[in-house]
Amino acid sequence: MLGLDPDVAALWPGVVERSPLAGQITPSLSVGMAVVDHCGALIDAVAPACVAVKPQLACFERLGGEGWNALRAVAKHAHACGLLVIADGKRGDISVTAQAYAQALFASAETPFGPIEGLGVDLATVNPLMGRDSVEPFVTAARAAGAGVLALVRTSNPGAADIEDLLLAEGGTVWERLAVLVDELGREGVGESGLSDVGAVVGATAPEHLARARELMPNAVLLIPGVGAQGGQVEDLAPAFAPGRAGGLVSASRSIANAWMASGGDPAACARAEAERLRAAAWALS
Amino acid sequence: MLGLDPDVAALWPGVVERSPLAGQITPSLSVGMAVVDHCGALIDAVAPACVAVKPQLACFERLGGEGWNALRAVAKHAHACGLLVIADGKRGDISVTAQAYAQALFASAETPFGPIEGLGVDLATVNPLMGRDSVEPFVTAARAAGAGVLALVRTSNPGAADIEDLLLAEGGTVWERLAVLVDELGREGVGESGLSDVGAVVGATAPEHLARARELMPNAVLLIPGVGAQGGQVEDLAPAFAPGRAGGLVSASRSIANAWMASGGDPAACARAEAERLRAAAWALS
Repeated sequence: MLGLDPDVAALWPGVVERSPLAGQITPSLSVGMAVVDHCGALIDAVAPACVAVKPQLACFERLGGEGWNALRAVAKHAHACGLLVIADGKRGDISVTAQAYAQALFASAETPFGPIEGLGVDLATVNPLMGRDSVEPFVTAARAAGAGVLALVRTSNPGAADIEDLLLAEGGTVWERLAVLVDELGREGVGESGLSDVGAVVGATAPEHLARARELMPNAVLLIPGVGAQGGQVEDLAPAFAPGRAGGLVSASRSIANAWMASGGDPAACARAEAERLRAAAWALS
Repeated sequence: MLGLDPDVAALWPGVVERSPLAGQITPSLSVGMAVVDHCGALIDAVAPACVAVKPQLACFERLGGEGWNALRAVAKHAHACGLLVIADGKRGDISVTAQAYAQALFASAETPFGPIEGLGVDLATVNPLMGRDSVEPFVTAARAAGAGVLALVRTSNPGAADIEDLLLAEGGTVWERLAVLVDELGREGVGESGLSDVGAVVGATAPEHLARARELMPNAVLLIPGVGAQGGQVEDLAPAFAPGRAGGLVSASRSIANAWMASGGDPAACARAEAERLRAAAWALS
């Protein structure tokens, strides 16, 4: 899966130069268009070698309203290329606020002036710290839209040890308790494939946790960040694919988008080659 | 403090009707302008009785790029009225992604076309589930901008019992561990007032936790949601104000914005009266 974390200081060569209206429109509109151009070219290059794109919402919202509109355009383009879109925003909140986030992600907002279309994504990451009622509204909205959610369970960063790995008095860790919550929320959403519409984020940098995560969440799609720039190895991820190839979604972002920087070759060809290498490594496990 | 959670189905009377360009511009631009109008009127009515506004980011981002631009306009208006702006987005992520969120909140994003201004908020809520390295980038960016962060510690929803209240093998609860993290991250940011630039969210619906939260975080500003629509009572919040009036930020949203619905009076006058009632109740404790 292709992570889309556009860094406006590292757009592909030519994107800035070919921006036809630069200087005639506002910086925010110029950069919005350049980001759509960059992400579009990246998607076109990599689409045949992946099943999904994972835009990092932070990278778009720092560009303001035009960044948000760019995100919508990028999501539409990915869908047109036959890819799933996974919004990585790690939202978490309750009640009407969670419903508002879910409208932005999966549905639309009704207004007196007409509906405002949301992003229409297929999956979205959520943060379950606030408990069941901070995840359920996302699950409900996703299910109604034929989409799904991926809850943070055991992330790929060193700080995961601070809270997620804490040992509980009842036994097990915080992250294992989160895994149980994911399994419970997902039971009603298990489809014919045996996979549920409630999945989990389990980092590639702690592969020893993957087998336990799969045991606690037998039906969950596992989104596995941390391959590539963060140091995780695809070869360690076999447990994720126990229910089949669709059971694991391996994400890489900078190692694909910036592959050309090391070799100096054509950005699109380098991105495609790196994506194909990762796909072959992941599918060799399944 | 005034929560800004604009519900486009419950804008103040007249806002939709007086939208001068409705029908001539896109629904998304119309609703963006109406939300700025509604929030602006609410801020003007309540400003003398509060110190801050707390926009709920979800309610703006569900309106797309124009919603995000509306949020920026509302933040500017609140600043012009002398109020602090607290972005309630509960973001949490690591590394360059956390830095991107922080650019959107506190600073600006440098691009080849020029800088894109962020929201320039004074405080932002963050979700610390992923641990220290998911909060530190926000603290660093906020500190550089003269702003601060408020980490979720013990929230006001029933689901807080699911994860935050879990008992740890080492003693104490998950939320108490989060409180210790907040205290540690905030030590370098304690100002002359005795308050730190790293604060915490502690819900009003579990006031028994407030005294313990204050003990663990003696220098933290405590943001206290859950008063009003969620059932919390201002009168229970005394421990928050132990370091002085600025030690506690009591938030109410719907109970202020929708006060007119119960009485049928002028929305602005009803909102002002309810905000003044809450302020008097909170300051009687300090």
